[in-house]
Amino acid sequence: MISSCTCGREAMDIVDLIQRKRDGKELTSDEIGSFLDAYMGGEVAEYQMSAWLMAAFLKGLTLGETRSLMDAMIASGETLDLSPLGRTVVDKHSTGGVGDKVSLVLGPLVASCGAVFGKMSGRGLGHTGGTVDKLESIPGFRTTLDSGAFISQLQEVALCIAGQSPELVPADDRLYALRDVTATVDSNPLTAASIMSKKVAAGADVVALDVKVGSGAFFRNRGQAAGVAHLMQQLGEARGMQVVILMTSMEQPLGHAVGNAVEVREAIETLGGNGPGDLVELVTALAAELLSRAGLGLDREQAAQKAAACLESGAALEKMEQWIAAQGGDPACVREPEVLALAPVERTLKATTDGFVSSLDALTVGQAVFALGAGRRRRGDPVDHGVGAVVQAKVGDGVAAGQELATVYARSGAAADVAIAALGAAYSFSEERVEPPPVAETGPIC
Amino acid sequence: MISSCTCGREAMDIVDLIQRKRDGKELTSDEIGSFLDAYMGGEVAEYQMSAWLMAAFLKGLTLGETRSLMDAMIASGETLDLSPLGRTVVDKHSTGGVGDKVSLVLGPLVASCGAVFGKMSGRGLGHTGGTVDKLESIPGFRTTLDSGAFISQLQEVALCIAGQSPELVPADDRLYALRDVTATVDSNPLTAASIMSKKVAAGADVVALDVKVGSGAFFRNRGQAAGVAHLMQQLGEARGMQVVILMTSMEQPLGHAVGNAVEVREAIETLGGNGPGDLVELVTALAAELLSRAGLGLDREQAAQKAAACLESGAALEKMEQWIAAQGGDPACVREPEVLALAPVERTLKATTDGFVSSLDALTVGQAVFALGAGRRRRGDPVDHGVGAVVQAKVGDGVAAGQELATVYARSGAAADVAIAALGAAYSFSEERVEPPPVAETGPIC
Repeated sequence: MISSCTCGREAMDIVDLIQRKRDGKELTSDEIGSFLDAYMGGEVAEYQMSAWLMAAFLKGLTLGETRSLMDAMIASGETLDLSPLGRTVVDKHSTGGVGDKVSLVLGPLVASCGAVFGKMSGRGLGHTGGTVDKLESIPGFRTTLDSGAFISQLQEVALCIAGQSPELVPADDRLYALRDVTATVDSNPLTAASIMSKKVAAGADVVALDVKVGSGAFFRNRGQAAGVAHLMQQLGEARGMQVVILMTSMEQPLGHAVGNAVEVREAIETLGGNGPGDLVELVTALAAELLSRAGLGLDREQAAQKAAACLESGAALEKMEQWIAAQGGDPACVREPEVLALAPVERTLKATTDGFVSSLDALTVGQAVFALGAGRRRRGDPVDHGVGAVVQAKVGDGVAAGQELATVYARSGAAADVAIAALGAAYSFSEERVEPPPVAETGPIC
Repeated sequence: MISSCTCGREAMDIVDLIQRKRDGKELTSDEIGSFLDAYMGGEVAEYQMSAWLMAAFLKGLTLGETRSLMDAMIASGETLDLSPLGRTVVDKHSTGGVGDKVSLVLGPLVASCGAVFGKMSGRGLGHTGGTVDKLESIPGFRTTLDSGAFISQLQEVALCIAGQSPELVPADDRLYALRDVTATVDSNPLTAASIMSKKVAAGADVVALDVKVGSGAFFRNRGQAAGVAHLMQQLGEARGMQVVILMTSMEQPLGHAVGNAVEVREAIETLGGNGPGDLVELVTALAAELLSRAGLGLDREQAAQKAAACLESGAALEKMEQWIAAQGGDPACVREPEVLALAPVERTLKATTDGFVSSLDALTVGQAVFALGAGRRRRGDPVDHGVGAVVQAKVGDGVAAGQELATVYARSGAAADVAIAALGAAYSFSEERVEPPPVAETGPIC
């Protein structure tokens, strides 16, 4: 006997909210707020939220619903009030890529140019790394800071990157963990509400969003990336935040280094003026956007010139040193790269013929480095800071037979062999030179 | 940092199955079987199953997937093997209605005509009652029987109606409870797989499906009902079962009595040849379908004549007595209706003007009787066997001002007043006589 009980309304409200989303109806701000509150309070079960998330995934959320969800997520925890600093605070977020060490360079760079850079960052999951994991390659570096320490450091050093505080947006942790195991991650409104709730709660005035598109990115196609980027901008602006979007390519790894310690080494080289062209170009573009909005009286062109000067002068590298020391890390790593220990088994991949690199698949490289132990399969898993790869040859580079294309750092010969084979498969070659993909679309897209 | 982990396949199969259903892909029989096994074994979490159910609800299941789901549900428990009886066993299922005491009449009727009728039945939920609850109005009647007792009774009495055995299709209990709280009940393939898994596991050779359509039914529109009916037939036939479908009206209650004991009283009157016209018509139609497929050498017309004769002769009523005694109930109730105790507060609803009953809303009547305590809001709640209503005046009946339209049996005056007011609202009147809705479409539809 089956029955849809239409008696006893008071017990039915949760199911009714799931049903209305299932039927494509728009929920009010109060309804979404109550639903999320009840979830955080344990009245809405995980299996009810996952059904709602799947309905939202398949039926979509309106802009109003997405904003309500973000607002409810923010209200689930504390928010940082950075107004006592009396300064414009800038922040940056990337949707994740392979070899993406941009924050490690951008933070010290804009701080050395006079801006205040305050960022809370996640840990890596799957084949893309996380800034916090990379920073923890530095001996002694603390990524767990309370709000007071975060604000003090912004006052003293104008630069702080800490792990996501559990007091901020606790709903996001629970929702993301649930989405991850119920095939509801890849949704524009859910993704936008997740990212922007954390950005708003962390208190910055200006956020640059680096939205990556391509093989190694969360977004494989430009249309979806542009949609979510625009949505994130609308969500931030609704909360009084300036949001600038850059859409950038993730067909091949960014720079050469992929891993943890090996990426910090490359970030330090870049701050010392010796960075790879694509990384320097992207960091400079983001710095120009942030500095021109940081209340420093600089337009975008002046901001880009100032950034170049700070890389040139060593000011950016000095800021890196100062920052590492402020968070308890060993600042010697800035002058002595070997402080950032790499795994002991080093193998190289060599070209077998003459030609040009025509593609270097970012996902394949990311997965190879993940398999070495640099990433985590599940939250809470440890990562190996010393393993990684350096892909010297990139798209458009000419290579000769026998030339070194890439190096891996592994814990065993067997693991190194697997990684070398994977990297070999990531490369394609052509007889004619192929233009590398442009790093970023010119200027902000939104 | 967001990432969709494409590393570590072995941990991802569950999410992959959810994702493929989410994307509208067809899953194989093995995949659905493994998914349900893993759910029953605790490897697939409730929140993963509910996400899958919502995806299945919104994207649909193919016939193959629906059959695979039914097969996997059947395989989750034991099945009854009725072949040792050496007889064709017939069964019947209703999708639920108001005043639906058909099984209480049909079982003894077809058994008295020479067929073997074996049925496992559910309990009521919401405004529709359940056969097992109604039977428990009879003092001493046992509805919990093990497989051995069920088969023995079929051998001795040719008639047994027991509660759903927990050993059969345990997956259905868990899935239904989950669907009930995640707004995924109202899905044709999920509904069809649920019903037919239980019918197949219970071992009958022939099943008559009474698919009700209208205000008081699970299905409000004929199109949806016909779709699920056809699907159930295909599922049954795939397992070698003969399935005959009758689509029947549930715009007004069936017969006059609505409740538990009060419905058993009406069933007994009907078996004694004094039943309401619509109930007799429906029971006779179903009996003709079952008897003509029961290996008795009767065609449908002969079967209908035999059924009418058994009602007339008292054979059907004798079978009722024999059956009640076999299941431990007090057979005196067949001759002494007061053995089936009604609640003490009796009130009547009277017509305020002359005219004709133009409608009597089944859902409103069902909810009124539910509110008196005859139904349960949640599984496991107790029901009150004594409360109920008798709606004497039905659609097409002429009434005079002051004439009794309906009677309620309640536990308190206040409850009776509420029920009377609700029944008053269920009736509509007209000056011209309105034809009552036909009980059933002529003949089986599939």
